[in-house]
Amino acid sequence: MPDLAYVNGEFMPIEKAVVPIEDRGYQFGDGVYEFIASYEGRLFMLEEHLDRLERSMRGLNFDPISRSEIKAAICDLAERSGYPRAGIYIQISRGAAPRNHAISPNISPQIIMTIRPVKEIPAAMRKKGATAITVEDTRWDRCDIKTVQLVANSLAKQKALDSGCDDAIFVSASGVVREGTSSNLFIVSGGRLMTHPLTNNILPGITRTAIFRICRQAGLDAEEAFFDTETLYGADEVFLTGTVTEVLPVVRIDGKSIGDGKVGPTTRQIYTLLRQLALEGRSV
Amino acid sequence: MPDLAYVNGEFMPIEKAVVPIEDRGYQFGDGVYEFIASYEGRLFMLEEHLDRLERSMRGLNFDPISRSEIKAAICDLAERSGYPRAGIYIQISRGAAPRNHAISPNISPQIIMTIRPVKEIPAAMRKKGATAITVEDTRWDRCDIKTVQLVANSLAKQKALDSGCDDAIFVSASGVVREGTSSNLFIVSGGRLMTHPLTNNILPGITRTAIFRICRQAGLDAEEAFFDTETLYGADEVFLTGTVTEVLPVVRIDGKSIGDGKVGPTTRQIYTLLRQLALEGRSV
Repeated sequence: MPDLAYVNGEFMPIEKAVVPIEDRGYQFGDGVYEFIASYEGRLFMLEEHLDRLERSMRGLNFDPISRSEIKAAICDLAERSGYPRAGIYIQISRGAAPRNHAISPNISPQIIMTIRPVKEIPAAMRKKGATAITVEDTRWDRCDIKTVQLVANSLAKQKALDSGCDDAIFVSASGVVREGTSSNLFIVSGGRLMTHPLTNNILPGITRTAIFRICRQAGLDAEEAFFDTETLYGADEVFLTGTVTEVLPVVRIDGKSIGDGKVGPTTRQIYTLLRQLALEGRSV
Repeated sequence: MPDLAYVNGEFMPIEKAVVPIEDRGYQFGDGVYEFIASYEGRLFMLEEHLDRLERSMRGLNFDPISRSEIKAAICDLAERSGYPRAGIYIQISRGAAPRNHAISPNISPQIIMTIRPVKEIPAAMRKKGATAITVEDTRWDRCDIKTVQLVANSLAKQKALDSGCDDAIFVSASGVVREGTSSNLFIVSGGRLMTHPLTNNILPGITRTAIFRICRQAGLDAEEAFFDTETLYGADEVFLTGTVTEVLPVVRIDGKSIGDGKVGPTTRQIYTLLRQLALEGRSV
């Protein structure tokens, strides 16, 4: 059961997987990606991830790649590794060409993937809840496209870790709370869930979509709304959502306790429902 | 006299030069770069480019690399190619590690370079002047760091070409004129030069610096100031500056003629002075 890479049709050990230095993913950040996880060998919400991947490619005007080809490669990779709980990273770049801001008309997209066991959120963090800092969102204006331009995300995450916290939350210059460094953010206030609307400033998360469907089925009130840091600090509960993050409670932000500083009941309920769905292997 | 690449200490044909797929330059846009040109075999303003490269690395908290090592590799590459008018691309990424937003403490920066003859601006465009469109600046908030996160630059350049123009000019959401897709921008109004101040929203161009020094020596009035698109359209002359761009007149923007729609005398004078400096092989 090895870690594996896939590069344009070929499978190989990750250490052997390389791309040309003139791949535009390397010299222009001109690539899009997805991260998909399996539960007991089944890929969770695969079609939704493929939808978003295609949407990202269209967003940057990439030449299209056959969806069935990408899907077949993902499934082949999952089968070859045999991991029951796998994390598959898929990156498509616009292609390789001598460096030029103008886009060569003859360029073809390049696909790489890796598969490894999912690096789970530590059980203690799930139980006690995570801590976070807020940082000003300095990212570009098209965070709805899942590109590899992730320096701001990475520096914010590292800043959080360096200050003894677990993650960072992006806040706009005008004080609107957006999302985590690799997750969406929900608050629970007076029994109602709220998260940032789908604009060009946040990622349309697959787990975010799942949460809305779960809430509908469970009769929980969930809505999209803009809110500021005071509303965030004053929420009863806060949680982050993402493919690996799943539903992660945040109990302390910028040194302030959220609610009573413990994992709240709504967060726990939604986490349980999401896990159930994932383990049943069905999309919501 | 071949095109050549350099990868972490080794020289090779560009087609053979590769990086690991888990280089963070590829998966996070976590790299910085420089482009240096030679004139008659002499690298123009090499030390200034090395200064900026170090500044960019510090800006992203990269582990340092010996400046003398980088400089020796650049000079070695220039000598091996033998091109009298060479363009050297240098990219340093934070390094390679299994994908994680958090930065591995053991990561070492990776260096790649390429050398080719400079792809000159066509003589006809220099003579007649270039045309441009304005586009809203959607880039991240640290354009003063020369990172490889260049998707917005590339898409803006391509948009300009697709609409029959030569380049795009970034304008802030509030209407402030910033810079080109790979160049700084100057206007000439009533005999005075103006360009956007050095903030986090524009690149501190090496040629931009050279222009200020040239103006001082030539007794021309040049200042940093914020100005809007109306001021841009109403300027007597507009030009772009950069390592390959040098001093490129822009005679039509968003379909409007600049001045009389011909290359102006100040632009011509400054271009001549810059070429003189470069051919004399000295920094200003």
